[in-house]
Amino acid sequence: MTTTLPYDPVALAACARTIAETGRELAALGWTPATSSNFSMRLDAAHAAVTISGRDKGRLSGEDVMVVDFDGHPVATDAKPSAETALHTQIYRRFTDAGAVLHTHSRTQTVASRLYAASGVIRFEGWELQKAISGVTTHESTLDVPVFANTQDMNVLVRQVDAWLDAGKPLHGYLIDGHGIYTWGKDMPETRRHLEAFEFLLACELDLQRLRGERP
Amino acid sequence: MTTTLPYDPVALAACARTIAETGRELAALGWTPATSSNFSMRLDAAHAAVTISGRDKGRLSGEDVMVVDFDGHPVATDAKPSAETALHTQIYRRFTDAGAVLHTHSRTQTVASRLYAASGVIRFEGWELQKAISGVTTHESTLDVPVFANTQDMNVLVRQVDAWLDAGKPLHGYLIDGHGIYTWGKDMPETRRHLEAFEFLLACELDLQRLRGERP
Amino acid sequence: MTTTLPYDPVALAACARTIAETGRELAALGWTPATSSNFSMRLDAAHAAVTISGRDKGRLSGEDVMVVDFDGHPVATDAKPSAETALHTQIYRRFTDAGAVLHTHSRTQTVASRLYAASGVIRFEGWELQKAISGVTTHESTLDVPVFANTQDMNVLVRQVDAWLDAGKPLHGYLIDGHGIYTWGKDMPETRRHLEAFEFLLACELDLQRLRGERP
Amino acid sequence: MTTTLPYDPVALAACARTIAETGRELAALGWTPATSSNFSMRLDAAHAAVTISGRDKGRLSGEDVMVVDFDGHPVATDAKPSAETALHTQIYRRFTDAGAVLHTHSRTQTVASRLYAASGVIRFEGWELQKAISGVTTHESTLDVPVFANTQDMNVLVRQVDAWLDAGKPLHGYLIDGHGIYTWGKDMPETRRHLEAFEFLLACELDLQRLRGERP
Repeated sequence: MTTTLPYDPVALAACARTIAETGRELAALGWTPATSSNFSMRLDAAHAAVTISGRDKGRLSGEDVMVVDFDGHPVATDAKPSAETALHTQIYRRFTDAGAVLHTHSRTQTVASRLYAASGVIRFEGWELQKAISGVTTHESTLDVPVFANTQDMNVLVRQVDAWLDAGKPLHGYLIDGHGIYTWGKDMPETRRHLEAFEFLLACELDLQRLRGERP
Repeated sequence: MTTTLPYDPVALAACARTIAETGRELAALGWTPATSSNFSMRLDAAHAAVTISGRDKGRLSGEDVMVVDFDGHPVATDAKPSAETALHTQIYRRFTDAGAVLHTHSRTQTVASRLYAASGVIRFEGWELQKAISGVTTHESTLDVPVFANTQDMNVLVRQVDAWLDAGKPLHGYLIDGHGIYTWGKDMPETRRHLEAFEFLLACELDLQRLRGERP
Repeated sequence: MTTTLPYDPVALAACARTIAETGRELAALGWTPATSSNFSMRLDAAHAAVTISGRDKGRLSGEDVMVVDFDGHPVATDAKPSAETALHTQIYRRFTDAGAVLHTHSRTQTVASRLYAASGVIRFEGWELQKAISGVTTHESTLDVPVFANTQDMNVLVRQVDAWLDAGKPLHGYLIDGHGIYTWGKDMPETRRHLEAFEFLLACELDLQRLRGERP
Repeated sequence: MTTTLPYDPVALAACARTIAETGRELAALGWTPATSSNFSMRLDAAHAAVTISGRDKGRLSGEDVMVVDFDGHPVATDAKPSAETALHTQIYRRFTDAGAVLHTHSRTQTVASRLYAASGVIRFEGWELQKAISGVTTHESTLDVPVFANTQDMNVLVRQVDAWLDAGKPLHGYLIDGHGIYTWGKDMPETRRHLEAFEFLLACELDLQRLRGERP
């Protein structure tokens, strides 16, 4: 019977295990409060595995991960994907080497998004950890993270991300105002590294502003 | 002999296990310092299970949970319930769909309560996580959390909460000045989600004020 | 052979287990950095069990606890007690109901001690958690924690504490400038409760000052 | 076959276990974000064991540690050592009693390095925990931690450290701007103690500045 599935269920089970383990670790850091956040992995050339809506991200099991196509439609399931699934599948469509997408909702990410919403971008300069982002080789560079306006209309969010990319600007992650971060990488370890780097850089930037008495 | 109990002891044991597990997790977050905090669950149409006074909330066992009626009187026990039991039973009387009540005492909750005591209310606007509160569907809403004056007289506290509700204002949780938060939900998972959301929103609001150099 | 010991070795072993477990928990909270901090328990009418100098407080075993008399002299051992042992034995001499003493060195305790060194005292008012201190029954009270000047001469520290007590002022714990806190209770659970309460109250007070832009 | 190795493989395995355990503990503290940080131990009179480049420091195994000579060249391996290996081997050359070197990248270390980069040094005075640094016996002393300019050229970094030492100034650890800390000790426990002490002192200093409204 399973041979009729349009994807490999063994591959899905492996993705689900990786997603569940990642969720446990990120929840333990406090980055997924109140069932927020969602995670996904590229399953094959046409499908992604994504977390089901509303689950506690620290207690995910195989049952909490489902398959969608790259338009975000559920595949061979009645489950409802996370509300922001369209933002995940957009990444798989536009970055053909992206293997995983993490959206978390840490206090630092959320506060930074509010603080920089008006300027629309956070620029990092002079931090050694900028090198944790794939392709960055020196702290003597600039790393821009856009902050998009929040909306409950996913299409509007998708268009904001498309507009940034269509303008040819580099993009390794973005914030949504009052909401949290999206980042991705070639596989889950690289995506985790990007997420940890952005969280660290945002926290350092806020600390430095507080200590210098600056306002963005 | 146990057939003479006015409640189901098996249901009580299940509540006690849930309360003890919740206590362990909240204590690990540091939200129940110095034996503060108290927890309860609706047991049946006339009774609630509530923590016994003065216990370490990170090390609760079945022995640390007792039964009270909805006036807060101990039922079939000589144990002394938590001092604030009247605030728990008030919730079960006034919110007939409330299945659990959590009172914690985190640093963020306590500091926020002092900071907003004069204005009497904290208003959240523009945070995606407002949607973690049951019934809230967009960040484009306002969420008010009242801060009531502290007193060792539980009747006065009960009357403050009654007055807010009698005025027809929405209420999903409240702070007591210098004291901590009360929140509830249809069951323990929803109550945990509400508690995590309020803790997060309070922490973000304080961070943002610090960074903007604002005073409430 | 052990019958010649002036104390009960079984009682010592029990104290050592309690001290080691307490150390593990306090170290996990980050309150004992860099082998700082020391702990003790009253062993009998003439002796205390105290941590040996310089050990990692998160990895204590029975070998890391020794016996001293109430003048701080080692009893039936060549081990060297913690440098501040005289401050522990002073508590056992002056508070005949004290069963345990904890000295920790958290960041909050240390920063608060520097900030209030000039005024010599921190006063808590209006915090519900003041009630966690034995004998305090309402937040409508004042709780004073003195900050004594630091010195490497233990006799001077002892005299500062004696002077406070001889003046008839209540004392449940004290800070030493740049150094950390001492607190005690009738047994280890009460001492832990006092320690958690002071840590919480100090942290809240510092947060509130930051948010209000006040300077002590 | 292994007899042809220029070092003792049993000693290497012991170093690797110690390094891996240290890495797990430091990663759990959040001091090694995004595969940053590197660790080493003196293996014998001519070799050091050092972490291989780019590994997650919380999940190190024996395979993640390699041997270099004191010029930083790989010995009997094709593996690539951490980029900053030259800074480790410099310590073994210049401090003949150094048995371990830890480089971490905590938020506190990184923010402090940015804040004090212009002045080039952080001075600690009056903190009891200065005594955790080997050779310091009183808080009534000064402890200077230099902040060197960051560069991707390790030779320039090495020369900055050499210049400080050649000037005859005491050195127990140093920061690199935007980058993190290096510290060392006679063995891993002493090095851990130094690292914990510097992290604590930096955090306290930043807290105190924030509370006093000072700018460095």
